[in-house]
Parts: sequence; C-alpha cells; structure tokens
Amino acid sequence: MDFAFDATTHEHREKLEAFMEEHVYPAEPLFEEQARDSGWSAPPIIEELKAEARRRGLWNLFLPGEGLTNLQYAPLAEIMGRSPAIAPVATNCAAPDTGNMEVLHQFGTDDQRKRWLEPLLNGEIRSAFAMTEPDVASSDATNIATSIVRDGDEYVINGRKWFITGAMNPNCAVFIVMGKTDPEAPKHRQQSQILVPRDTPGLTVKRGMSVFGYTDNDHGGHAEVIFEDVRVPAANLIGEEGGGFAIAQARLGPGRIHHCMRLIGMAERAIEMMCRRALARTAFGKPVAQQGVVQDWIAESRVKVEQLRLLVLKTAWLMDTVGNQGAHTEIQAIKIATPIAVEWILDKAVQVHGAGGVSQDFPLAALWAGARSLRFADGPDEVHKRSLAYRELKKHT
Amino acid sequence: MDFAFDATTHEHREKLEAFMEEHVYPAEPLFEEQARDSGWSAPPIIEELKAEARRRGLWNLFLPGEGLTNLQYAPLAEIMGRSPAIAPVATNCAAPDTGNMEVLHQFGTDDQRKRWLEPLLNGEIRSAFAMTEPDVASSDATNIATSIVRDGDEYVINGRKWFITGAMNPNCAVFIVMGKTDPEAPKHRQQSQILVPRDTPGLTVKRGMSVFGYTDNDHGGHAEVIFEDVRVPAANLIGEEGGGFAIAQARLGPGRIHHCMRLIGMAERAIEMMCRRALARTAFGKPVAQQGVVQDWIAESRVKVEQLRLLVLKTAWLMDTVGNQGAHTEIQAIKIATPIAVEWILDKAVQVHGAGGVSQDFPLAALWAGARSLRFADGPDEVHKRSLAYRELKKHT
Amino acid sequence: MDFAFDATTHEHREKLEAFMEEHVYPAEPLFEEQARDSGWSAPPIIEELKAEARRRGLWNLFLPGEGLTNLQYAPLAEIMGRSPAIAPVATNCAAPDTGNMEVLHQFGTDDQRKRWLEPLLNGEIRSAFAMTEPDVASSDATNIATSIVRDGDEYVINGRKWFITGAMNPNCAVFIVMGKTDPEAPKHRQQSQILVPRDTPGLTVKRGMSVFGYTDNDHGGHAEVIFEDVRVPAANLIGEEGGGFAIAQARLGPGRIHHCMRLIGMAERAIEMMCRRALARTAFGKPVAQQGVVQDWIAESRVKVEQLRLLVLKTAWLMDTVGNQGAHTEIQAIKIATPIAVEWILDKAVQVHGAGGVSQDFPLAALWAGARSLRFADGPDEVHKRSLAYRELKKHT
Amino acid sequence: MDFAFDATTHEHREKLEAFMEEHVYPAEPLFEEQARDSGWSAPPIIEELKAEARRRGLWNLFLPGEGLTNLQYAPLAEIMGRSPAIAPVATNCAAPDTGNMEVLHQFGTDDQRKRWLEPLLNGEIRSAFAMTEPDVASSDATNIATSIVRDGDEYVINGRKWFITGAMNPNCAVFIVMGKTDPEAPKHRQQSQILVPRDTPGLTVKRGMSVFGYTDNDHGGHAEVIFEDVRVPAANLIGEEGGGFAIAQARLGPGRIHHCMRLIGMAERAIEMMCRRALARTAFGKPVAQQGVVQDWIAESRVKVEQLRLLVLKTAWLMDTVGNQGAHTEIQAIKIATPIAVEWILDKAVQVHGAGGVSQDFPLAALWAGARSLRFADGPDEVHKRSLAYRELKKHT
Repeated sequence: MDFAFDATTHEHREKLEAFMEEHVYPAEPLFEEQARDSGWSAPPIIEELKAEARRRGLWNLFLPGEGLTNLQYAPLAEIMGRSPAIAPVATNCAAPDTGNMEVLHQFGTDDQRKRWLEPLLNGEIRSAFAMTEPDVASSDATNIATSIVRDGDEYVINGRKWFITGAMNPNCAVFIVMGKTDPEAPKHRQQSQILVPRDTPGLTVKRGMSVFGYTDNDHGGHAEVIFEDVRVPAANLIGEEGGGFAIAQARLGPGRIHHCMRLIGMAERAIEMMCRRALARTAFGKPVAQQGVVQDWIAESRVKVEQLRLLVLKTAWLMDTVGNQGAHTEIQAIKIATPIAVEWILDKAVQVHGAGGVSQDFPLAALWAGARSLRFADGPDEVHKRSLAYRELKKHT
Repeated sequence: MDFAFDATTHEHREKLEAFMEEHVYPAEPLFEEQARDSGWSAPPIIEELKAEARRRGLWNLFLPGEGLTNLQYAPLAEIMGRSPAIAPVATNCAAPDTGNMEVLHQFGTDDQRKRWLEPLLNGEIRSAFAMTEPDVASSDATNIATSIVRDGDEYVINGRKWFITGAMNPNCAVFIVMGKTDPEAPKHRQQSQILVPRDTPGLTVKRGMSVFGYTDNDHGGHAEVIFEDVRVPAANLIGEEGGGFAIAQARLGPGRIHHCMRLIGMAERAIEMMCRRALARTAFGKPVAQQGVVQDWIAESRVKVEQLRLLVLKTAWLMDTVGNQGAHTEIQAIKIATPIAVEWILDKAVQVHGAGGVSQDFPLAALWAGARSLRFADGPDEVHKRSLAYRELKKHT
Repeated sequence: MDFAFDATTHEHREKLEAFMEEHVYPAEPLFEEQARDSGWSAPPIIEELKAEARRRGLWNLFLPGEGLTNLQYAPLAEIMGRSPAIAPVATNCAAPDTGNMEVLHQFGTDDQRKRWLEPLLNGEIRSAFAMTEPDVASSDATNIATSIVRDGDEYVINGRKWFITGAMNPNCAVFIVMGKTDPEAPKHRQQSQILVPRDTPGLTVKRGMSVFGYTDNDHGGHAEVIFEDVRVPAANLIGEEGGGFAIAQARLGPGRIHHCMRLIGMAERAIEMMCRRALARTAFGKPVAQQGVVQDWIAESRVKVEQLRLLVLKTAWLMDTVGNQGAHTEIQAIKIATPIAVEWILDKAVQVHGAGGVSQDFPLAALWAGARSLRFADGPDEVHKRSLAYRELKKHT
Repeated sequence: MDFAFDATTHEHREKLEAFMEEHVYPAEPLFEEQARDSGWSAPPIIEELKAEARRRGLWNLFLPGEGLTNLQYAPLAEIMGRSPAIAPVATNCAAPDTGNMEVLHQFGTDDQRKRWLEPLLNGEIRSAFAMTEPDVASSDATNIATSIVRDGDEYVINGRKWFITGAMNPNCAVFIVMGKTDPEAPKHRQQSQILVPRDTPGLTVKRGMSVFGYTDNDHGGHAEVIFEDVRVPAANLIGEEGGGFAIAQARLGPGRIHHCMRLIGMAERAIEMMCRRALARTAFGKPVAQQGVVQDWIAESRVKVEQLRLLVLKTAWLMDTVGNQGAHTEIQAIKIATPIAVEWILDKAVQVHGAGGVSQDFPLAALWAGARSLRFADGPDEVHKRSLAYRELKKHT
C-alpha cells in the first residue's frame, strides 16, 4: 500500500504542471471566448494546445498497459482536473474517448483498432459511448431496450439513447453502442457493444441535452441519438455477443479513478479560490476570511479532500496490484464519496463568491454542475451504495 | 395567529387554480419553445396570458393596502410558484416589479407614480432594481460604492451594478438605483434610491449574467449595468436623501414572503414529479417508489414543506398585524429556512429523474438554480443567521 | 387553522409559568440530590410539588374531553418540557400514565375505571404500558409475540417485554399489556390489551434497562418484565378481543403531541443555556457568543424551533377539529421532525458547554438522551417516514 | 507514503488478534458483571488479562522510540479499539497513562522516571493528566487558571480541575498537573507541568463527572480534583518552567492517532453489529437488512471508515518521517474528521438495534458516548477547524 509518487510520477507531474502554468491556465479566457462561437466543436485554441502537449510528451498518458500505471496516472488526472474543460482534451485524456480507447485496446480486433483506435490515439477524431436511454432506468443494465439484431452479415440497431457525451461534435466519428443481442439470455449476457460510424444511415444525432443550463458545447455536448434500422457489418461487434456487460464493467474502474481525481483537482482549485476571495473581501468590518463559518467551510473542505485523495490513490493502487475485481468495493466507494463531497466544496466556494459564484465570471458553477451530474452518471449513488451494502452484509451471513 | 384561508382567499385560490389549469400549465411547452427565440424579451404567449389573467381579475394581487393582505396573498404566491416562469409575470405579480411598485406606491411622489407606477400596474412596462455591485460584498449596505451626487437640479450617478434582474429586457423602462448620497452620514443614512429611465445617457446595460447555465432570458436576464455620469432630475429621488436603506428594508418583508411561498409552490410541484416518476420507473425488479431511500426523500420533503409553509404564513400574518418590525425574526427565519430546504427537495427530485432531471426536459434543474441563487440573494444566509443570532443573544444579556 | 392562545390557554399558561418559577425550577437541585438515593421511586419532593400543583388547579390538564383541547394543552406541555423530570409528574401529566388514563377513560369499563383510573387521576398510583419486546422488531405490531389466551373466566399471559417505562417504581400498580389473542386473525385484529396488576403471580419485573448511561430511576426506570402463565380475570380485557391495535393507535396522537411539545420546551431551555454560556465564556480573545459558528448554531436552533412548534400546534388543532384520522400525516410528521431536530439543538448546546455539557452538572446530556430515544420510541423514524411516503405516493396513483 | 503493514506489524497484529479472540472478547461479559461492583477500580479480570498480555509480548506497544513506529502501532490501536474498555488497559496501552509515560520518557529526569515511569511501564500504578478546568474555556491554554508558584525548594499549586480521567481510581498514584508558573510570560511560555503524588496534602479527588450518564467507573472515572496549597518538591517539575505548553503539544500527536485508530476499531465493530442485527431481524415482511435506508447506512459507514483509516495511517507515517510539526494539518484533520464520523456510524448502529441499542445489553450507546466526548476533548472540533483554516488561508496571503 505505497502511494508515494515514484520518479516517473514526479517527472510527469512536473512536466504537466509546467504545461498547465505556461499554456492551460493562460488559455482559459480565450477558450471561454472562443467557446461562445464554436458551435458544438472544440474552440480552435484546443488544437494548438494539443500540439504543444504532444510536443512535451503529455499525450495519451491514461492508456494502461502502455505507459503509466493507474497509481502513476491518478495524480496527473488531479492536475488536469484543475482546468477540466481544457487540460484533459489537450492531452488526449478526455472522457469518453479514454474509455473507448481502452475498450478498443483491450477487446478490439486488429481491423477495429486500425480504423478507430489509431485516429483516436492521434487525436484526429472523437468518439462517443451510447449507453443511457431516456425510457428506462438504465442504471439497471437489464432495462436496456436498444436492440442489436443479427441479420446475415450485419447487425441492425434500433433504439433511443440520450446524454451521449461528445456526440454533438461533428468530429465525433464513431459510437460504441450498448444494446441487447439476446433478451432471453442470463441477465448479464444479454448485452453487446458495437461500433457505429457517425455517418451510418438511420443514425440521427437529434439534439443536445443540457446539464443545469450548460450545453457543454465545447466538449460536443450530451446528445439524444436515435437509431432506426441502423445497419453495420457484423465485424463491428466488439468482443463476442453477450459480452457487452463485461466490457462495460472493465472500463468502469479506470474511468472512475479519472473522474474522481479530476474532481479532486477541481476541489483544490475551488479551495484556492474560496481562500483568495475570502481574503480579498470585507464585510461587516472584517475580511470574510475571518468569519467563523467561512473558516469552518475551508477546514471541512481540506479535511474532505485529504481523505478522498487517499481513498482514490488506494483504489488506483489496488487496480494495479489486484485488478478490477479486488478493487470492487473501493471503486464503488470513490464513486459514492467523491462527487457529493466535491459538490459540497464547490457549493461553499460559490457561496463565498456571492452572486459572482453562480455566474460565468468564475468557473465554480459550471464545475458544480459537472460534479452534480456525476452523482447519477454510471448509475445513481444510491445504486452503488446498495450494492456495496450487499457485499458488506455478505461478510456476516 | 389564525392562518386559515378566509372567503376572499378561497375565492382567489379557486380562480387562480382554474387559470393555472386552463391556461398556464398548458402554455408551458409553447413558452419553452418561444423562449428559445425570444431574445431577452418575454415570449409572445405571455401577452395573451396577461390579457386572460386581467380578464379574470387575477391582476396585481400582490399590491398591499389596495386589495389583499399578506396572509391572503401568500397562498396565491404558492400557486404561482408552481409555474414560476409564467404565472407571476402573467398576473403582473413578478419580481422585481412587485417590489418596485410597492416602493413607488408607498414612497413615490404623484409625478413618479403617474409616470412609472401606472404603466407598471398596467403591465405596459417592466422595471429593475439596481442594488448589487460586483466590486464589494454588497450584503453589507455600507459597502455600496455607487455614488449619487447632487449637482444643481440634477443628481449624477456613477457606479457598476450586476445581477440586475430583468434589465436585459428592452421593455424594462426604468431602474430604481441604490447608491450613496452621503458617505459621511451614519451608516444607514448614507444611501438613497433614485429613478433612472433606461434611455438616460451614460447608462449601459452591458451583458447578462448567468445563473449556473441559465440566462433567464425570458425574464430579462440578470444584467451588468454601468452608470457613467448619468444625470437625472433631482425630482427622481425616491423619498428623501439618506432614506435608501429604510426604503430597501421596507420592500424586503413582502418580497421574502413572495419568494418563499413561490419556493414552496415549486417544492410541491417537485414532490408531485418525484412521486410520479418513482411510480413510473422500475429498477432492479421493483418500482423506484418502493426503494426505501426514495421513500425517505419523499417523506422528508413532505415534512419540510409542511413546516416551511406554516412559518411563512405566520410571518405574513405578523406582517399584517404587527408590521415589518414585529416580524423581523420571522422574516429572517423564512429566508434562512426556505431556499435551502427547497433546494434539497429539488435535488432529490432531480436524482429520482436521473439524467433527465438535470436537463431541459424537466423544469427541476432550472428551479433548483433559482432556489440556489436565493441562498445569497438579499444577502447570503450566513449574514441573516448572524443577525438573527445577535437578536437571540440579546434576550439574555 | 387558528393557533392563537385563547383566554383559557393564557390563564393556564400564566398559572403554570408561576408554578414553574416559584416551585419547579427552584426544586431542581434538591430533586437531583434526592434522586441519587431514591432508588426506583420518585424523589420525596415530588409529593410536595404534586400537592402544590393540585392546589393551584394544575392537575390532569392533559385529559381530553374533560377540560382542555389538544390545542389548549399543547403550550402547557411545552412549558412542562422545560423541566421534564419534574413538571409533568408534579402535575399528573406524565407518560405513560397519561396515555393509560386516556385509554381507560375512553375504553374502560366502569369497574376498570373505578379500580384503576380513579387512583391514577388522583396521583395515588402509577402505571405502565407493556408493548415493546426484546425478541422482535416490535415497531411492526404483527411481530408481537406475547400471547394472551382465554382460559375459562381468565386470560393467561406469556411473554417478555422490555423498556417498560415506570415499571421499576414499586408504586407502579398496574400494567396495560399488549399481546396476541388471535394470531390467525387479520393482522390488525390479532392484538388485545389487558390490565395486569403488579402483584399478579407470574409477573416478574426483572431489571432496569438503561438509556445511554441513564437509568431514569426517578421516573421508575425502563424495566424488563417477564410474564409466565400470568392469570387475570377476563374482565381485565380493555375493549374487545382483537381491539388492541386500534386502542394503541388511539393513544398515539395525543401522546406524540405531548412528547413533541415537551421536546420543544427542552429545546427552548437549551437555546437559553447555549446563549448564556456563550455570553459568559471567553476563548481566543473574544466571548464565545461572537464566534460565527456558535451564532450559526443559535440561529439554526431558533429557526428549527419556530417551525416545529407551528407544526405541532397545527397537529393539535387538527386532532381537535378532524380527529386522529384526519391528522394522520401530521402526527407522523411531528414524530419524524421533532426528536431529530431537538437532538441536534441539544447536541450544539452540549458542545457550547464543553466538557460540562456531557456531565451531571447541566441537564443537557440527559435531555439529549431523552430526545435520542424518541427517535425509535413508538417505532423508529424510518418506519414512520416509509408510511408517510406511501400516503404521499398514493395521491399520485 | 507507504502504509502497508510490514512484517513486524503483521506479526503483532496476529498476536494481538489471537489475544482478542482467545481472551478479550470472551472476557467482556465477566468484565461488565465485575464492573458493576468494582467501585472506581478496574474489575479483577483485568489483572489476569494484563498478565496474559505481558506473557504474549503484547505490552507497552505504544511506546515510541523503543519498539514500534506510529505507523506500526496504529493498526494495533485499531484492534484494541474493538474492545476499548478492556484491550488497551490489558496491554498497558491505555490513555492517559500512555501520554504520561511518553512525557516522562521524553522529558522526565532520571529520578522522575525511576519513581513514576517504571511502575507505570510495569502496570503497577495508574496516572492522570490534570489539564481541563471547570471555570474557563480551557481549549484556550492562556485561560488556564491553576497556579504553580515557586516557594523555596517547593512549588505550591492552587486550582480546580475536572474531567481528570482515571483519577477516581485509588490506584491512580500520580497526577501530571498543567498550571501557570508565569502569567506575565508570552502566552505559550506561561504554563508548566508538574508531578503531584496522589497522597499530597491539599489534593482532593472530589467526585466523578459523568459522560452521558456513564461514570466510566471501571476506568477510574473522570474526576473533579481540587488543589489547595498543594506543595511538591521543585524537582517534580517536568522539563523547565514555561515548558508546559510545548510538552502538552508533544503528547497530542500520538494521542490523537491512538484515539482515532481506536475509534476506527469501534466503528468496525459497530458495522459488524449493525449487519448482524439487520440480518437477524424481520419487520414488515422482510429482513431489516433489505431495507434501503439501512443499506444506505451500512454503505456510508464502510465508505467513511475506509477514508478515515487512510488519513490516520498517513498521519502516523508523517509523524514517523517528518515529525509533529510536519504532520500538524493531518493531526488536526484526524481529530476533526474521526470522532464525528464514528459518532454517526454508532448512531446508525444504535438505530438498527432499536431500544436495545441504547441499553446496557449492547456496547453501542457507551461507545457512542465515548466518541461524542472526543468531539470536545483536547479542545472542541471548532477550535481545530479554525486553526486548520488559518493555515490553509495563509498559503494564499
């Protein structure tokens, strides 16, 4: 259980922090400005930052098995989380591409990798993962209604998905679609995952869903997508028929670590902003920083973050040493603990900023919306708590 | 301490509920659609609804001293709060016009009333109240930096305001501006309020501030407004020089009751939606409505709302019987208790709706943002708690 | 919905407050001292106080149908709650006798009333209500395992009960026992209630159960009681066979109002103590009363109490006007809302008192234990929340 | 940052767990029974357990510099915390002796060590630490009022202390007393610590203070102690005059780690009990373990404990590697985070146990009282939060 940063981590952290200081933070105002007119595409500054990140060797760092371990990558994800709209995408470490690349890396055929993984790793295209459905509680995978039916050499896909992150971006070239190939199979063998190119007839990217008023347009939004008799070659199936649930599980672990570490980075930035604002403002005869309630928030924030970071690092270390299965409880625990705690910290940072805190002049409200939406992404917290409780109870039966 | 609905209240409630059922709820989808293209103006359907409300005698019901008492009006505000983007404006009972009309009604000269109050009462123009400033913690009125300087027959105004609700609407014809006429006076005699027509040279409505991701464009947004050597006739002063703080206090009481009752209306609608959704969805083999945690949320929501409503009604009753001063503690108490509780209820309703809950397909996320912003509007909760605590402590000194 | 105190209430409040000031508060130190040596009986001072209360007409005020309404009695219960170990018993308004007297008053035969109700009303004996069982989750009445079996002219009782409040007191002369007469009947017709004199063979008062570290010895403790082939005349049955559940329900409404109003009285006393202590102590260069976090606690406490009181008064008013059934939601709501909120207030008052707060030198820790135990008395909060949620959900099915 | 258990830790854990299984848990019922009649002394079984622990090499494991590091000892403290009334004292690792032994070990003269440290290390006597005072907010050390005045070859001590843990035990042979030698010195140089044998004239152990009704008699209680012209030789001073504050700080770090790890052990036991009870009881047609709210509590408990343990282990590791100063934030953080979280877990475990949970039949209520009292021991949480916040704010000034 050694979470210390090794030499590799130290080196990458230094490089990444330099990149943040020299390029990412300075680019934030321009990014915001460009994002207003960039439609559903990334603001142009992003391509420049990608080139710079690549030049510096800060590229695809997330990819396991190739370079860094989860424990080595986690502290980098935290740093990226300090500017979450820019840093992950600039380093080609942004969801959902990361998960999609992992899936193709681990389960894809040579052809699938050549056609989709390579341009993804090169940052030439984006991708989406189409799982959530509007008509059912899709945290229960057995509820998924989209059908994937074999017809000769093809599969035919019918269904409706929404909150498909990134899909509004015209550069999002491919969808990994989760659907049912066999509704009669045992419940975790009913689902399959299949690759669907964006331009396939019958696929309609209908509209962007907003998240507390935010369209996340710079990131390709969160689309509603309709599949009507969409036909793709049978070779587009990822892995085997019925393997969809297992593939989905495989991507969850690293994805949660990334999400949670980025959230911790956001929290650290929020604490900094909260402290600076409290020091800069005066009300009722003394700096806001001397108000007892504000001090209480700052202390609680620090105490929460310290605990969360250790738990996520331990989870990463477990993933590296005993794998997904051995880290099951911890992977659920970080999903349960992190978004709600970081949401709380962001709420307090907003409150210290007064009206400004909810506005576009500070990133806090948008970060809050991101943290809030992670309380139901990958299934609502309540589902994970129930599952974790079952495991705890099982120890005593 | 009789909060029962009297005959007048019953009659108005019935009329208002009929209007809601027959016109407001059915208009919600069209309103949403029109709002997308209405710029900073109200969607066209609003004028139709205003005509209908007026025809039904549901017009200016808020105005005290003329018609209803606070206790009679409060239950109507709750009903309006069920569709808060439409019902208040359709009945000419929307903030900030209500407060502005009260101020003109109570403190305005005949000329001021004729020029501004009449068209406001007729729903011909809208108005704004310019108090909050970006550069200071303006919950502390002594911090206000905008200057109002007498120069012959005129006052000259310089300063910067933001979060001026409604000001982006081109139909917002007049601003009531809070500023300092005498920075050397005792701290609650430094401020004055003055009327500034929208078209006065030097007044610039610069941009809309967003609240989380919402611009509230259909309501005229929340503007940043710059005053540079803005000159208005001395007769535009409301009340006397140095009376600004007292006038601001006077509008607070009724305003809080309106806000809180509308929040309670929102909460009731959220509880309805939470129940319906929980009954309609199935996960892990049973309706969501049978999940213990969801039941817990529903029960807590009901228990919170019952308490809040009684407290607000009592406050309204106190306002009617002993006035602003005698209701001081209660006016603060409802401000402390209501937004945070309703925010909690809305959060749970969002969670029950999953991804849909944060999106534009349900009103919950937008209602949440409204409730959240009331935790710092009129000064952050923490300021009110401190003030209430001082009063409590004083009983024992 | 008129909660105002009428003339009768005002008069009784004044009389009761005078009694508290002149006799109850001054007796607290002596009561504490005597309680150390009074075994399981009331300290001797209690008899003096009872005589005084009776002389002043402050006797059996709780008894509905005879004197005061629930709405008239509720504010008196609040005042009594300020000294909850003394005032209720001194005025013959202490649980569980109050509920037992109500049951005998409403359901008892003339003989039962003559033998038990009269001496109870005279304060000559005490009584107990034997419902909770150690071996089952007895919040679910169908779980109750104690059997009451007809055998000729007698009933034979077998079972084990615990937390039978007051039963350790040798002066507790009679038990109302809840048990099953017909385990095969519909689930709410299986139970009956029966009178068992303390000296009946087979009845063993085994030991006192503690509540946190408190034995509540001055109040007769909370006993474990064994019933082994206990035989009583058939005439001891209260009401009819199978009526036990309905009788239990009937006593719940007023009992909850009493409990909750007493809790509110405790909360008021805790707020007073918290304020006084915060004003009296200095730390880190200023009075504790100027610490922002303590002010926050004081304000929250006041806001909570104001809401709770209104909700309980409304419930009392509903009980008076529409009866138990019509007040079902409210009776559950006050049980859900009050103990947990008052527990919170007491916890904060303890914290302001530092080490002293948890000790015998202040009543706060003992009051806390009382409030805490009401979170599961009459069934845990969670059961009531579930039931309330079912009713809320039913509105939408 | 390597928290893994090394070989030494593994070995000690195994030995300690064997001792717990074979001796401590089985002794709990007898301990409880003996404790009822043991006055303020330890129940006789304790001496047998001490002998056994010593035989097994499980003795004085806490003592730093001699044997184990903080990181090695911390997991042992957790195991001891599972039976906190027995295991620490049986292994001579109980507070306040541990802190007193550390102080004598680090700051004592040869004579002081010979006379007091040796019998303490041998478990022959007990000791107390007299710091808290009833008359002032003693979390602010400058408030301490007890005077220690040099008079020739002696010091004369006057003052009043309370909550002096262990002092009611007749076997508590010596007090380390904190008082002021120079009220005019800089504020952290005013205090000194001095050894006072129990039998010194003028020292009166007056009474035991209770903690939520518990006297903790088996542990020597929490005494009020009066010092009236108590004279001890000047050689009894620990360290130098004015060094009292620094000595107090030195003992805090390890003490907090011990407390917090024991709390985590209690939490683990509570989770086990909560699971077992929930599995064993049925209500409303299904096992309590299937109630969603109970599952939620179990999951939250597990998630909290995992975070707390990592934070305390990190703190221990920091203490070992960079010392007290470098671990300042973490030492405060564990004090802020652990008691309140474990209190929450214990509260839920109590609730799952219904009435039984608050009684003497389960250890939960007593453990709760212990956790609760740690929220103000060593200064209330609020003081630590303020101090931690100052340090956080300082980073940004």
